[in-house]
Amino acid sequence: MSTQMRDEVHAAARRAREASIPLATATRAVKDAALIAAAEALVAATDRIVEANAADVAAAREAGTGEHVIDRLRLDAGRVAAFAQGVRDIAALPDPIGEVVRGSVLPNGLRMTQIRVPMGVIGMIYEGRPNVTADAAAICLKAGSAVLLRGSASAAQSNAVIVDVMRGAVEAAGLPADLISLLPSDDRASATELMRARGLVDLVIPRGGAGLIRAVVEESTVPVIETGTGNCHVYVDADADLDMALGIVVNAKTHRTSVCNAAESLLVHRDVAGEFVPRAVAALREHGVLIHGDAAFQAADPAVVPATDEDYATEYLDLEISARVVDSVDDAIAHVRRFSSGHTEAIVTASAPTARRFTLGVDSAAVMVNASTRFTDGGEFGFGAEIGISTQKLHARGPMGLQEMTTTTYVVEGDGHVR
Amino acid sequence: MSTQMRDEVHAAARRAREASIPLATATRAVKDAALIAAAEALVAATDRIVEANAADVAAAREAGTGEHVIDRLRLDAGRVAAFAQGVRDIAALPDPIGEVVRGSVLPNGLRMTQIRVPMGVIGMIYEGRPNVTADAAAICLKAGSAVLLRGSASAAQSNAVIVDVMRGAVEAAGLPADLISLLPSDDRASATELMRARGLVDLVIPRGGAGLIRAVVEESTVPVIETGTGNCHVYVDADADLDMALGIVVNAKTHRTSVCNAAESLLVHRDVAGEFVPRAVAALREHGVLIHGDAAFQAADPAVVPATDEDYATEYLDLEISARVVDSVDDAIAHVRRFSSGHTEAIVTASAPTARRFTLGVDSAAVMVNASTRFTDGGEFGFGAEIGISTQKLHARGPMGLQEMTTTTYVVEGDGHVR
Repeated sequence: MSTQMRDEVHAAARRAREASIPLATATRAVKDAALIAAAEALVAATDRIVEANAADVAAAREAGTGEHVIDRLRLDAGRVAAFAQGVRDIAALPDPIGEVVRGSVLPNGLRMTQIRVPMGVIGMIYEGRPNVTADAAAICLKAGSAVLLRGSASAAQSNAVIVDVMRGAVEAAGLPADLISLLPSDDRASATELMRARGLVDLVIPRGGAGLIRAVVEESTVPVIETGTGNCHVYVDADADLDMALGIVVNAKTHRTSVCNAAESLLVHRDVAGEFVPRAVAALREHGVLIHGDAAFQAADPAVVPATDEDYATEYLDLEISARVVDSVDDAIAHVRRFSSGHTEAIVTASAPTARRFTLGVDSAAVMVNASTRFTDGGEFGFGAEIGISTQKLHARGPMGLQEMTTTTYVVEGDGHVR
Repeated sequence: MSTQMRDEVHAAARRAREASIPLATATRAVKDAALIAAAEALVAATDRIVEANAADVAAAREAGTGEHVIDRLRLDAGRVAAFAQGVRDIAALPDPIGEVVRGSVLPNGLRMTQIRVPMGVIGMIYEGRPNVTADAAAICLKAGSAVLLRGSASAAQSNAVIVDVMRGAVEAAGLPADLISLLPSDDRASATELMRARGLVDLVIPRGGAGLIRAVVEESTVPVIETGTGNCHVYVDADADLDMALGIVVNAKTHRTSVCNAAESLLVHRDVAGEFVPRAVAALREHGVLIHGDAAFQAADPAVVPATDEDYATEYLDLEISARVVDSVDDAIAHVRRFSSGHTEAIVTASAPTARRFTLGVDSAAVMVNASTRFTDGGEFGFGAEIGISTQKLHARGPMGLQEMTTTTYVVEGDGHVR
């Protein structure tokens, strides 16, 4: 491990910590003014950002990167305007800091209040899209924390300009520039040092593919929030309205395939399989979906390929789905418990007891009853901003908004109370 | 790493997971009945427990263990009755499971509810005192989770009997015995395997000395909540009522020295140092406290020994304190930020702005204004049960009651909603 990289990451973390101290007591007005200034500066710097991005895109193309990855990397004036607007939208959200979570007067007269306070220093490790840079920086700043950004090497030039522009705007607005820092991305060691900077960094959030998240979880000594792996199921119950079920299955699978709340697996109750399986297969095939199915699904259409346990465990993020018939809601729950990543499951049923059984039986961040898995989303839930969707049970589970980016402290006031 | 131990821990975790499924939907009445039965069974088994404990105590004495450690290990009928009563008290607390944390109807008509649900499987790694065994098992059961207990080898025989008795009572009450399991403690590997059983165990809580907690944080891949290290400060401001300050300093340091919310460091504003330092030194010395002080404290009494940075960083857990004079509240804040473990700080001041500045400036789980640090405690805060005091910012900060032992899920109900 390079000592030089460690020193560099630690020094950045210390500067971020220093910067976070005045931010912790900054008023909402000051924070919002800085965010709006940053949004305006990003729009004003559109040409610079797009130019730097063109260099990233050219380098990616030269390295033989696939077109769909390049599409996520590419910025144009419209995309810059969109993430600048995202920064403005974050400014418009209520300030989570100072919120009273609970409070009471204790029997001895002590006045206890639990209030939301900033985390301090947050590390973000992410891949691909440079719009995450502006988004993460704005969310952290609004939540009162400094951020250390460790983006992808493929977006290094885009990220450098975005961070430079935002730092300038934040400083001009009277807050420390070191609230937003970009770590080097040309060396894996910068990510490793970030996740091992316990005591200097309060929280690391990895945002990206399953491999990245696994690596961070395995190596980090800083507390981590896992995000985004979604092997989501739709279970069509015996008591389902089958037209409704068809609409939900197709929407959950095909509305957007590359997102974590897309469905990856379909379970159908045996009692309705005879009618529903052929309809589902036809509708999915019409949308170009490759189906990995059990015997019942294979019998419905020769284009259905056999499903293995590996298929049931796979998050395709593509026009593919695994599918099987189950004997009961309990059988469906057992399947979900075995294969799910704990993101979102949906049940389609008109039966309230069955819905309740499924809801309490699976063990996931969100359960949709008669609705598409696609609704697990900070925007849909009304949180405004979203840093990711947590699939872990600690601290935050499901879409993480500004509240989930804070911690709390107990303030206890007395009149000389002793024990 | 022994594969055999891994298999054993993983097998125990899988049995615990299976057991946790029916518990997740058990009513409060069923859980409380099991806890009350366990309490009664513990009292009925007093002789068996005390006998097993005598063997642990004899082995500890043979190994040359110090008397204060043996005192914490020792059980008699009174101590068994006390922890059995603790189990009954946990039964009497409200059930955190099912509590609605937030809920709303989204603009599209989806009905969203965030509800408290169990963690699943919780691992406890702890030292010394066998009463923790009954306490941790009862808290986890009430919070709807199965527990894997990894106690100290020195309490192995006591723990074995306590767990056996509680398992029997839980099973007789109609819940799975595997909700409470004791892992072997004669091999360090059982703790290591527990902390690395990611996917099988949802949360690990270490409860013990700083060394244990550091080891768990460093090695664990399962999410961890750090507990209990308390380098707590009392800051006596220029605007303090000095009689009140004296009472708080003495209480915070001497009321009970071996606990994490005892004061370990005293900071005094220069403006009142001339009057307060000699009084504080005299009062602390009268209680037998060894003072590691700066020049001002040394000048007050030749018995004051010089303080080093190491002293300022030390959690003495004994009749010792570090002490220095500071120039301002900001100087006090900077000292606390540098040396504190983030547990509890106290300020004594009549000035509201100064209290507010200190409260927001330090970065700790709890801040006492004109009250002793000793009040940071689940019982004092009215939480009823307490599994420990978290000094980390993620998930839970400060005393952890039943709520903090749960996670949440979003249940979203629609009428065929798609995006």
